[in-house]
Amino acid sequence: MSTLTATAAQTMLQQYENIRTFTEKICQPLEPEDTVVQPIVDVSPPKWHMAHTSWFFETFILTPHLPGYNVYHEQYSYLFNSYYNSVGSRVQRDQRSTLTRPPLRDIYTYRQYVDAHMAQFLGTVSEEKLAELQPVLELGLQHEQQHQELLITDIKYILSTNPMLPVYTPRPKQAQPSASVPAFFLEVPGGTYTIGYRGEDFSFDNEHSVHEVLLSDFEIMNRLVTNGEYMQFMADGGYGDFRHWLEEGFAMVNKEQLQAPLYWVKQEEDWYRYTLHGLEKVNPDEPVCHVSFYEADAYANWAGKRLLTEFEWEAASQVYPPTEGNFVESDVLEPRAADPAKEGLQQLYGDVWEWTYSAYHPYPNFEKAPGAIGEYNGKFMLNQMVLRGGSCATSQSHIRTTYRNFFHPEKRWQFSGIRLANK
Amino acid sequence: MSTLTATAAQTMLQQYENIRTFTEKICQPLEPEDTVVQPIVDVSPPKWHMAHTSWFFETFILTPHLPGYNVYHEQYSYLFNSYYNSVGSRVQRDQRSTLTRPPLRDIYTYRQYVDAHMAQFLGTVSEEKLAELQPVLELGLQHEQQHQELLITDIKYILSTNPMLPVYTPRPKQAQPSASVPAFFLEVPGGTYTIGYRGEDFSFDNEHSVHEVLLSDFEIMNRLVTNGEYMQFMADGGYGDFRHWLEEGFAMVNKEQLQAPLYWVKQEEDWYRYTLHGLEKVNPDEPVCHVSFYEADAYANWAGKRLLTEFEWEAASQVYPPTEGNFVESDVLEPRAADPAKEGLQQLYGDVWEWTYSAYHPYPNFEKAPGAIGEYNGKFMLNQMVLRGGSCATSQSHIRTTYRNFFHPEKRWQFSGIRLANK
Amino acid sequence: MSTLTATAAQTMLQQYENIRTFTEKICQPLEPEDTVVQPIVDVSPPKWHMAHTSWFFETFILTPHLPGYNVYHEQYSYLFNSYYNSVGSRVQRDQRSTLTRPPLRDIYTYRQYVDAHMAQFLGTVSEEKLAELQPVLELGLQHEQQHQELLITDIKYILSTNPMLPVYTPRPKQAQPSASVPAFFLEVPGGTYTIGYRGEDFSFDNEHSVHEVLLSDFEIMNRLVTNGEYMQFMADGGYGDFRHWLEEGFAMVNKEQLQAPLYWVKQEEDWYRYTLHGLEKVNPDEPVCHVSFYEADAYANWAGKRLLTEFEWEAASQVYPPTEGNFVESDVLEPRAADPAKEGLQQLYGDVWEWTYSAYHPYPNFEKAPGAIGEYNGKFMLNQMVLRGGSCATSQSHIRTTYRNFFHPEKRWQFSGIRLANK
Amino acid sequence: MSTLTATAAQTMLQQYENIRTFTEKICQPLEPEDTVVQPIVDVSPPKWHMAHTSWFFETFILTPHLPGYNVYHEQYSYLFNSYYNSVGSRVQRDQRSTLTRPPLRDIYTYRQYVDAHMAQFLGTVSEEKLAELQPVLELGLQHEQQHQELLITDIKYILSTNPMLPVYTPRPKQAQPSASVPAFFLEVPGGTYTIGYRGEDFSFDNEHSVHEVLLSDFEIMNRLVTNGEYMQFMADGGYGDFRHWLEEGFAMVNKEQLQAPLYWVKQEEDWYRYTLHGLEKVNPDEPVCHVSFYEADAYANWAGKRLLTEFEWEAASQVYPPTEGNFVESDVLEPRAADPAKEGLQQLYGDVWEWTYSAYHPYPNFEKAPGAIGEYNGKFMLNQMVLRGGSCATSQSHIRTTYRNFFHPEKRWQFSGIRLANK
Repeated sequence: MSTLTATAAQTMLQQYENIRTFTEKICQPLEPEDTVVQPIVDVSPPKWHMAHTSWFFETFILTPHLPGYNVYHEQYSYLFNSYYNSVGSRVQRDQRSTLTRPPLRDIYTYRQYVDAHMAQFLGTVSEEKLAELQPVLELGLQHEQQHQELLITDIKYILSTNPMLPVYTPRPKQAQPSASVPAFFLEVPGGTYTIGYRGEDFSFDNEHSVHEVLLSDFEIMNRLVTNGEYMQFMADGGYGDFRHWLEEGFAMVNKEQLQAPLYWVKQEEDWYRYTLHGLEKVNPDEPVCHVSFYEADAYANWAGKRLLTEFEWEAASQVYPPTEGNFVESDVLEPRAADPAKEGLQQLYGDVWEWTYSAYHPYPNFEKAPGAIGEYNGKFMLNQMVLRGGSCATSQSHIRTTYRNFFHPEKRWQFSGIRLANK
Repeated sequence: MSTLTATAAQTMLQQYENIRTFTEKICQPLEPEDTVVQPIVDVSPPKWHMAHTSWFFETFILTPHLPGYNVYHEQYSYLFNSYYNSVGSRVQRDQRSTLTRPPLRDIYTYRQYVDAHMAQFLGTVSEEKLAELQPVLELGLQHEQQHQELLITDIKYILSTNPMLPVYTPRPKQAQPSASVPAFFLEVPGGTYTIGYRGEDFSFDNEHSVHEVLLSDFEIMNRLVTNGEYMQFMADGGYGDFRHWLEEGFAMVNKEQLQAPLYWVKQEEDWYRYTLHGLEKVNPDEPVCHVSFYEADAYANWAGKRLLTEFEWEAASQVYPPTEGNFVESDVLEPRAADPAKEGLQQLYGDVWEWTYSAYHPYPNFEKAPGAIGEYNGKFMLNQMVLRGGSCATSQSHIRTTYRNFFHPEKRWQFSGIRLANK
Repeated sequence: MSTLTATAAQTMLQQYENIRTFTEKICQPLEPEDTVVQPIVDVSPPKWHMAHTSWFFETFILTPHLPGYNVYHEQYSYLFNSYYNSVGSRVQRDQRSTLTRPPLRDIYTYRQYVDAHMAQFLGTVSEEKLAELQPVLELGLQHEQQHQELLITDIKYILSTNPMLPVYTPRPKQAQPSASVPAFFLEVPGGTYTIGYRGEDFSFDNEHSVHEVLLSDFEIMNRLVTNGEYMQFMADGGYGDFRHWLEEGFAMVNKEQLQAPLYWVKQEEDWYRYTLHGLEKVNPDEPVCHVSFYEADAYANWAGKRLLTEFEWEAASQVYPPTEGNFVESDVLEPRAADPAKEGLQQLYGDVWEWTYSAYHPYPNFEKAPGAIGEYNGKFMLNQMVLRGGSCATSQSHIRTTYRNFFHPEKRWQFSGIRLANK
Repeated sequence: MSTLTATAAQTMLQQYENIRTFTEKICQPLEPEDTVVQPIVDVSPPKWHMAHTSWFFETFILTPHLPGYNVYHEQYSYLFNSYYNSVGSRVQRDQRSTLTRPPLRDIYTYRQYVDAHMAQFLGTVSEEKLAELQPVLELGLQHEQQHQELLITDIKYILSTNPMLPVYTPRPKQAQPSASVPAFFLEVPGGTYTIGYRGEDFSFDNEHSVHEVLLSDFEIMNRLVTNGEYMQFMADGGYGDFRHWLEEGFAMVNKEQLQAPLYWVKQEEDWYRYTLHGLEKVNPDEPVCHVSFYEADAYANWAGKRLLTEFEWEAASQVYPPTEGNFVESDVLEPRAADPAKEGLQQLYGDVWEWTYSAYHPYPNFEKAPGAIGEYNGKFMLNQMVLRGGSCATSQSHIRTTYRNFFHPEKRWQFSGIRLANK
């Protein structure tokens, strides 16, 4: 084995260990009881996330590629498969809270078992094999990063349903901006833009099929919509005025009697919101968060603007390339106010996922990978809307300007927010 | 009043009378009891359609613009408003079968009352006024044509739930094609296409905002997918193989235990289907019909092809302009087999609405009309898929190549079918 | 055939014709559209009642016992069977509104066809055969009387859902009592009472199995609870105070946000209620009606009293035998105020069915009849509560003091009301 | 404080400590994750049971009666109130799994805190105070015993939903009977029986109001219906034959596609069932268990017999007084086969709760206690059926022949079984 190959495998192992460790850091403040419940079907038990991400490496790397590997437990394939029909039957998604056993400590042991064998695998794999498996290894790591973000949003949801409103972790000290940032619009010229990922690093199949789109001139708001702006919409009766809403959004608002973003509660005259640091008063300068697509669209209509399409968002990111953002590494776990010291476009990366008015459909010439990996993205390409830019729960190394996240338009438990377009 | 103006109003009146008469022709074979039930929320009682289309003219033309007009009945505005929040409250959509009163004969009287006053209005309206109201008048007529199509699909659904499988009208005699038409694909060159309606005649707001899109080369199938081809998909276990399906489609198939298009029943070894002419054996050469978007997409995946986008469909209609089709005027009320005497692209118009893989979203720079008319289309622009080309239940004068119909992807009670794209 | 026998058959035919004619009198004010809808599963379409009662005679008398009888229509057995598993499959109960065909006029023809053959049957039947079939014939007539009462309650419900609040028939003129009747309690001595039907006339199997029960002394209220008394309960916050309610009743009140009996609406300061004569102001002296068991029980608790058991009710009827009541023959179709001219117990018969605190269970040694007739009562003997005494929608000839009616405790669409016990 | 009083308080403390310790013994085999989930609304999380039983003593004894007592945690009253409206608002019953916090270890601390203060209270309480509070103290202990039984049934349900079918505790060694016990019937003479509790010890309010009932002669089966007998019913198509079933029972069987008691699974040709000792093959001599009232009644009809009423059951227990039974103390946690060495009536106590055909209604002159304690039983007296005799999950000291347990007729997660009556 050449020194160079050793480095590639070692690098991969280093990456692997970093990412795996971060999952456990996220779960460290939890009680065992926190890790098993499933208050809504969107949320998975943290214990399940921890096991499922290990199952991924066991199923797609260790079992087929590490000679002599014995699975940790015969039933885990059934217990911790998420949605891969190709891999066999599985616990139904809405039944994940039945898995009180194996207990959390067994899941930690399972993770250690998989990690030890992954270290063994990466310590002995041939150059050719590593090159062949590189895409799956990288997919496994990206997959675990996606589940890290889901862990954070699911933990937030789980704890929020508890009447004691527990603190997951204290808010880190940070300086507040000295002033608010006024909203204005920046021009993006029309023309033909190339959409999709063209680099050498990892990317998902849904970003492939690079193709060109023709756009007209448009304008993009310099920062995210703030809580303060959104509270004006609320104060103006926004939730009660059908003219701003898509039909299905207005039906949802009425059925669920929505009056504010998820996690917001009014106490006397003031709005508070549940955060992973406990209940906090709403800061008007911070970006509004935990809104559905319907709320984002209704706000835009009320403001006389509109949401961007995903193609416009990607074009804007080519004209004004983002370089930094408030990601999970900041430990804030909430969006932050815009920075008055910055000119031009900001917050394109991080803080909140930005709803676009684009359905999550295949790009032209989209091709599914063969086998189970082909179930990763393609089969979800309907009835969901694309979100762009990552959030305060996303890892910095996980995001790209071509990254397409997607959720159903009524979902609110992700860190999702609003950026406006003009024209 | 000039002779020319007189002609414009007379022409409008002639059109009005033709369209209104056709509504009553559709309802002529019905029993009063058929006109009041609502077996699923998608279906409206025929009596309600008859009243609602009259309410449209009363509300938007007669009441505001015919001096001295008295509404036929004070409560009808509440009873027969469909979804216009601007116009006030209304009977909830799923409660329309509560309207056993007014009885059918009163609805006929209401129609006559409105028609008489419309004749009076069009006989006396000034040139300027007519020009001003032309868009609303045309909208009212197009609206009634849309409800005519819904009347046919809703009557079909209502009668199909009856264990006696009643015949609505006997099938007209017609010659059957002498042979099947083989499937092949026709090229459509890539490039920039102009999308949206650019003519002088009526069109809906959702077709406006003419804009350009960039397309790659693709190929379009020469005819619609047939029952025979679809039965091969069924015989090949298509409904049971997750690999062909979108996740939500496969969930629907399993939950509702779907095995065939809507209205199909197997008797001994053969497939039959309910039609407005009674139960008939499935003809393998006729286009498959009453499939959901999910089924259309799964069929395309099974066949190794895909559905067109709505932009590709419209581009193809520019390269191969359709001139004729099997519309409601043929009285067949079912799609017809392709014509072996024809070369090139056929069935682009009529027979079945063709599901596209495009979400029903606003075109760039879409603008809602002010007031109640602005609720016509815009608020439905989410979670629905675009269908193109009209069906055997559509009026010939109602269709255009730019016409955008839209339904939720799980709906099957419309005359909806499949055309494939290649590449 | 002896003269005597002829008289028995003639008497039966006379009874038959009287009862069958009354069904058609009830339906006479209806539009065809009124006769097909089913707004809630409890309610059956009037057309269905009309056909089902005819199906009963066809199935249990004509087909097996009239030589050469041809059924009117082969499919009617499937269409109009209610719940007799022994007789074969049937349209599911919640699907009865799918039967827009056969139209109402065909149902009338069906009734005439059955009636003509019943006349033929009763004109030719032998003495022995008549004696043998007497129980089924009487059951058929009692069955039709039960459906007459359901027709009235179902028509009331159907019309009440219509925003136009149609008048079924004008209220007949009647003198109002000159004064209110104060409430007091009458003693019923404890001891052994014989329960169940011991006469020679028709009675249902659920009244058989005559047996003795031991009762303590108790007291019974002289009249029914009035609207005025019930409005005091409402005004005292009765619907909002958990202490008066059974757990499941309070859950229902909260879920459905109940504040008054069914059909009541408040307009400005006054309570009105929908009746078959249209919307009328609530008369405080009339018995409260259209309350569930839960409301009856909560009212009794609030008043510091309780409901009677069915055994106490029957014992009281032995001590104070009722002789008259406000039945359907009065044409009032609403309960009437108590009569100040009467002393002692009144309203035990008619006006409203009186909820008892007795579950509808089999009497000791209850035996089901063999075959389909055995499904008449026995299989419903759980989760329902017994009501006694008949209502303003019951035929006078249909009631007995031993008659056991039964409904689920949450039901309110019957003419059901409250009488209190003390001790 | 006199020696005698000291003994009364000491006795109470001893009882208190025994019962409290047993709760913790039941929970000892559980993982923290097992104690928080709620797979169906009937089941409460074990952690919740542990806290709620402590809350009872805190709320009704310590807070009002121990001077200077500080509640363990201010929010616990909200978190762990079950259904006492009088005590204030509470976590909704179906939301108990949201309580991942406080974690299990805090609940143990809470229990210790309450126990220490109860010891303090009972060590210092005056003779008069103790006499006054005796009923509430005893109620608290009986209440905890009821929750111990629920803990066992809920733990069984929770673990059964886990695909790993975990063993809660190994089955204790025990000798199996040498032979089956044939079924026969024992006579109980008719006459007047006194029903209700007449002793000096604790009993619930629902057993009070001692009264007489008149019964006819009847016969009672000598033992419980066995698995073997029930499997004959199954093999004879019992679940598919409507003639045996109450209408609502047959609807449930069809909707849920029931084919066997709860926890039964067929593997190849044999029936197995989940027990707290893991999956075990069904023993044909053991009593059938985990059947609903509907199944019990259908079995009885199939067998040509019937269920007893609760009055007959109590009368039989007077004629054949039970002296022993298979209770929770045996550690078997499953019903046991009848004993061939015994003559006469057996298994009246323990093994399984016996469904009776009596609705759970108030006895004549039933009176609710004032205040919150009055909510203990009365408000549940509808739509539930009485069960008698205790089960293998009941404490021996908790049962009496007058004890009335009650569940809705469709419930199957309790240890409920069948005894037949004849005549």
